[in-house]
Amino acid sequence: MKHLLRALSAASEIVKRSAAVTFSRQLASSQLPQEKTPVWGSRKLKFRKKLQIYNLEMCDPEIEAQLAPLRAAVKEQGDLVRKLKQEKAPEIDLQRAVADLKHKKKTLEDKELALAPKDDFDRSKMEDLLKQRFFFDQSFAIYGGVNGLYDFGPMGCAMKANLLQAWRHFFILEEQMLEVDTAMLTPEPVLKASGHVERFQDYMVKDLKTGECFRADHLIEATFEKMLVDKKAADTLKEEIRALMPMIDGMSKEDMGATLRKYNMKSPVTNNDLSDPIDFNLMFATSIGPTGQLKGFLRPETAQGIFVNFKRLLEFNQGRLPFAGAQIGNAFRNEISPRSGLIRVREFTMAEIEHFCDPDKKDHPKFASVADLELTLYSGCNQMDGKPPEKWKIGQAVKEKLVANETLGYFMARIYMFMVKVGVDPKRLRFRQHLSNEMAHYACDCWDAECKTSYGWIECVGCADRSCYDLTQHTKTTNKGALGKAFKQDAKLITEHLSSLDAEAVSQLEQSLSDKGETEIAVNSKNFTIKKEMIQVKRYQKTMHVEEFVPSVIEPSFGIGRIMYAIFEHNFKTREGDEQRTYLSLPPIIAPYKCSVLPLSQNAEFAPFVKKLSAELTQCDVSHKVDDSSGSIGRRYARTDQIAIPYGITVDFDTLKAPHSATLRERETMKQIRVPLDELPAVVRDLAQGRRSWDDALKSYPLFEQQEASK
Amino acid sequence: MKHLLRALSAASEIVKRSAAVTFSRQLASSQLPQEKTPVWGSRKLKFRKKLQIYNLEMCDPEIEAQLAPLRAAVKEQGDLVRKLKQEKAPEIDLQRAVADLKHKKKTLEDKELALAPKDDFDRSKMEDLLKQRFFFDQSFAIYGGVNGLYDFGPMGCAMKANLLQAWRHFFILEEQMLEVDTAMLTPEPVLKASGHVERFQDYMVKDLKTGECFRADHLIEATFEKMLVDKKAADTLKEEIRALMPMIDGMSKEDMGATLRKYNMKSPVTNNDLSDPIDFNLMFATSIGPTGQLKGFLRPETAQGIFVNFKRLLEFNQGRLPFAGAQIGNAFRNEISPRSGLIRVREFTMAEIEHFCDPDKKDHPKFASVADLELTLYSGCNQMDGKPPEKWKIGQAVKEKLVANETLGYFMARIYMFMVKVGVDPKRLRFRQHLSNEMAHYACDCWDAECKTSYGWIECVGCADRSCYDLTQHTKTTNKGALGKAFKQDAKLITEHLSSLDAEAVSQLEQSLSDKGETEIAVNSKNFTIKKEMIQVKRYQKTMHVEEFVPSVIEPSFGIGRIMYAIFEHNFKTREGDEQRTYLSLPPIIAPYKCSVLPLSQNAEFAPFVKKLSAELTQCDVSHKVDDSSGSIGRRYARTDQIAIPYGITVDFDTLKAPHSATLRERETMKQIRVPLDELPAVVRDLAQGRRSWDDALKSYPLFEQQEASK
Repeated sequence: MKHLLRALSAASEIVKRSAAVTFSRQLASSQLPQEKTPVWGSRKLKFRKKLQIYNLEMCDPEIEAQLAPLRAAVKEQGDLVRKLKQEKAPEIDLQRAVADLKHKKKTLEDKELALAPKDDFDRSKMEDLLKQRFFFDQSFAIYGGVNGLYDFGPMGCAMKANLLQAWRHFFILEEQMLEVDTAMLTPEPVLKASGHVERFQDYMVKDLKTGECFRADHLIEATFEKMLVDKKAADTLKEEIRALMPMIDGMSKEDMGATLRKYNMKSPVTNNDLSDPIDFNLMFATSIGPTGQLKGFLRPETAQGIFVNFKRLLEFNQGRLPFAGAQIGNAFRNEISPRSGLIRVREFTMAEIEHFCDPDKKDHPKFASVADLELTLYSGCNQMDGKPPEKWKIGQAVKEKLVANETLGYFMARIYMFMVKVGVDPKRLRFRQHLSNEMAHYACDCWDAECKTSYGWIECVGCADRSCYDLTQHTKTTNKGALGKAFKQDAKLITEHLSSLDAEAVSQLEQSLSDKGETEIAVNSKNFTIKKEMIQVKRYQKTMHVEEFVPSVIEPSFGIGRIMYAIFEHNFKTREGDEQRTYLSLPPIIAPYKCSVLPLSQNAEFAPFVKKLSAELTQCDVSHKVDDSSGSIGRRYARTDQIAIPYGITVDFDTLKAPHSATLRERETMKQIRVPLDELPAVVRDLAQGRRSWDDALKSYPLFEQQEASK
Repeated sequence: MKHLLRALSAASEIVKRSAAVTFSRQLASSQLPQEKTPVWGSRKLKFRKKLQIYNLEMCDPEIEAQLAPLRAAVKEQGDLVRKLKQEKAPEIDLQRAVADLKHKKKTLEDKELALAPKDDFDRSKMEDLLKQRFFFDQSFAIYGGVNGLYDFGPMGCAMKANLLQAWRHFFILEEQMLEVDTAMLTPEPVLKASGHVERFQDYMVKDLKTGECFRADHLIEATFEKMLVDKKAADTLKEEIRALMPMIDGMSKEDMGATLRKYNMKSPVTNNDLSDPIDFNLMFATSIGPTGQLKGFLRPETAQGIFVNFKRLLEFNQGRLPFAGAQIGNAFRNEISPRSGLIRVREFTMAEIEHFCDPDKKDHPKFASVADLELTLYSGCNQMDGKPPEKWKIGQAVKEKLVANETLGYFMARIYMFMVKVGVDPKRLRFRQHLSNEMAHYACDCWDAECKTSYGWIECVGCADRSCYDLTQHTKTTNKGALGKAFKQDAKLITEHLSSLDAEAVSQLEQSLSDKGETEIAVNSKNFTIKKEMIQVKRYQKTMHVEEFVPSVIEPSFGIGRIMYAIFEHNFKTREGDEQRTYLSLPPIIAPYKCSVLPLSQNAEFAPFVKKLSAELTQCDVSHKVDDSSGSIGRRYARTDQIAIPYGITVDFDTLKAPHSATLRERETMKQIRVPLDELPAVVRDLAQGRRSWDDALKSYPLFEQQEASK
């Protein structure tokens, strides 16, 4: 989550460069109406009185009794943070208080999860199924495997392709977004501008003998936890550590180094000495081209590909706002210690949307269509008060300003609808608002769609309303080639200087160039002569923009692997009365195969019917699996259930007789109907595409009973 | 092309490691029936008499007269190569002769292209359109751009997504292939085994002052070409150079260095001195994980991801052959000098199939369905004889053994059908057979689907029948972890030793371990004690494989960017009588949008109809573009033609009257019909999906005439 935040926060610079060539503006930046960043204090007061109305969560009084002291502790700390903010306390005190608040929140959440009614979910059983039926597995396993890299097998790959196809329809087609497909290799200057080169990093420590690396914060935390349960450790020491634990998250590199030394921490694996904390950039570096002179990285997010094309997209959209760019693609992060299966990996697929709009027009034409949708919202205020999430109609939440505006609310609603459509359990889906210290400086509101899994609540989709970003008042594109030739190592200096000029200075420069063909500028007490041909000043005055504004961007960002993982957990089931019979109840829309075709036995007479059905299903674009292996029909059903096939056709002896028919079984109910052969492919297609419900099919065709008994 | 070859040739090792755990075999390798690598000589004799029958190409006698001497030169050289082969001449002589043959072939082909009837294709015009309507453009242009990296804009991206979706349906769904989606980051050991670390490289030279790099062979060739037209150069020198030109392709690093020095070659840009040729590996290197100890690369092809998962896929397929793995994904090659737009790039999307089968059963159950399809085949024999390609029915070509077997022929036919379906001009599509020196050592036949473009014939799809690869007789998986701990730096040595043991030695080892719990082995005159728990000997005796065989693989490999480029060229058109009106006639299946919706004017009464139509088209999954901008309807038609929209709905004044209707225009014929509004979305959907033809629609609805006149 931390990384995602970093990534999000890094994009403003690049937008500046990309967008700077487009909008004219007569108003000075300070005159522009700025959207207010909501303040906890005022928001809290506003909403406290509503709590009773919308609070529909948590009602077991016994559990609440156990949680009460933890809630109180969070609230106390939340109030302290508010107070410090109000008093404009020193930054360091505030940071400490916030770190402690987070820690207390986590303690509360851990307890909530621990006390929640147990489901009998067994992660290792699910992992067995996913591995055995090759949904996904570790990459390069025959070479010992590489942490944080996974291969999707036929089932995972088909599911992923279906998920992305559904995403494309649900977002790009329905909202007429502009999809791009941009390079993953990214030259360093781009990621310098975006802030990733400087800021996208973790601290690590190295085992001084083996070179093994650990994330410094994880190591400190783990060492502290070990010390806390060490019977030999003095109580005063434990006291000290308990006080320090909440601070880890906010520690600087120096703090961490001091802590490591003070408590004489060693490698947890070898007990060897450790290095001081080292900055470790999470991007994979490489070199583009043969000279080794152009450093590059694998992109850490797909968003930059949209930003660097902002101008082209705007032009494509005939200069009009709002519009949304979108991209599906892979991104890469060199995690120090990847873990939790698909949740924290080094290579992953994202689907990102950048909705560019007028900051003063964040209403949305389709908002009314989603206003009554109920979402579980975990507001920053409730988080600080130690209170649980609440159900809100999104219309009401926007009206009450809990959610910043209609467009943000619309996307949250659409994210919710999409997630549920592809198989996320709505009861295990919530939107958690970022606390202001989590939020990137430019964001005015940010909500993460989180899914509850056996790893706790994990962020699957981020949805941020980013504040207006700075578009420079005039566009100054310098002819870098000419400058580079003339000034060599000083060219960069000059370019920077030129870019920083304000409108008036640019006009003077232009005048001077046009009068004399050249002009002198002074940078860092050096003088340079700039010739006319070296610079080009462009001003865009698009008449279609009679109103002047600084575009704002709303960014929903989907982690596809994480969503898939949540779907797996939410749809992993066991047949009642048979613990060994596990299966996946994926919705047909993302099921790898929509249908199976099973001959009842190996009787040769079945074969032509199976072949014909298979051909006809292909004709109808229904992906399907023929399983004519030996094994009882019941065992084969169980096998198809494991790979989430929602519908199963069985060719049996009655199929051979005219009028030909076969049975059709549904995975969840295990009920079967008997359908004429020539109607079957279309029936399955309609069921798989959600155009027809199983209930409706049950009404239209006779139930097939015998098979049920024999299974 | 050269790189693709290298990539293909590199896969055998890795398959060995991956597959080695699967098949048992009682026969020794030498006893296995081996498929013969076809020999030019015998094949040539066999086919010569057929030439008259199938030769349907090239008939302009004037052109043929000009080509005749070049054809004769190729044939003479081809015969020399054959002779040298037969005589088992020294390798160096053969290489020289082959290099010269290639050069003569190229001269012939260049002449053929130059003499071919001119179309009025204007590449820069097409590039303008593609850039302006943002099909694709250079990446990071706002940062000056990076060579060999391209971003697809909304139009290119939608087209690419449609192309891949069509590919998935045509190959994966119809043939029930097993699709995987594997990691792009690849650890070094994998690519060492595959041969890429050692062999996937070019030679380059560096400008000693600026560091600029050039591909050594390109630089030598360019310098020679310059010298040949230099009026001051002596005739004897020119003679010498002419003799050397054909050899460049076959030069070793030392040969190139000597040539550079002998002719005192300099940087063509700065005239500075150059370095000696340097090996330059074409893979992008990076480091996986924080320690810097695990070197990795970005995969240079997607095939390896299938090979390393061979065992899992076989298991997924319940141990049965044949089956095909497939993968769509990006690959990366750090070209020294990328060029020709989308044709030679550094990051690209591939779609690869690995069809694993029994080498003795290369017949194909569906072959009969394609046998009568006519393809243009450019056999190795014809290439050596200086003869043009010929049309063959694929059934006949397999029967005559021109194409090695049914499965290979089936894939070639399917490739042809796919290419034509997505918009490649069949007249500019041929299959060129690899000459044996082009072919990787394991391949027994290889045909490239080549498209004719303004860059000449470019390879878009490779289709190789790879020979049986070596599966080891027994599987020896060593518990590397335990060995590593016990023997540290010697572990590798021991592992290699164990892997090289034959069946008998393995049995002895096993016996010894089972009797005594440990055994001694001697490697490199050192003795090691191997304990039972360190090693696991696995033998697979799958009873379903009563026949023993070594799997073979047929590999169709699609370069998606190149195919897209060929489609662009083959579908770029100009309206008769209006040179400025360029457009793209992409088939609806891959057109970015299927339909436009245009209100005749900005009259407000049209808006609700446009909105309703748009919603209904979305409902029908028809991607479409509403263009309600000002501008005459004719201008808007022209604009939609440019982005290849095949169908256009116009809402006009008649639409407002009941019964409501609108006009539907087809891009190629520009004819329009008038269709009732409630039927329109379904009509467009059926047209776009190819379920209904435009001719049929023309018959069903009245022609709309007035608009034609006013356009």
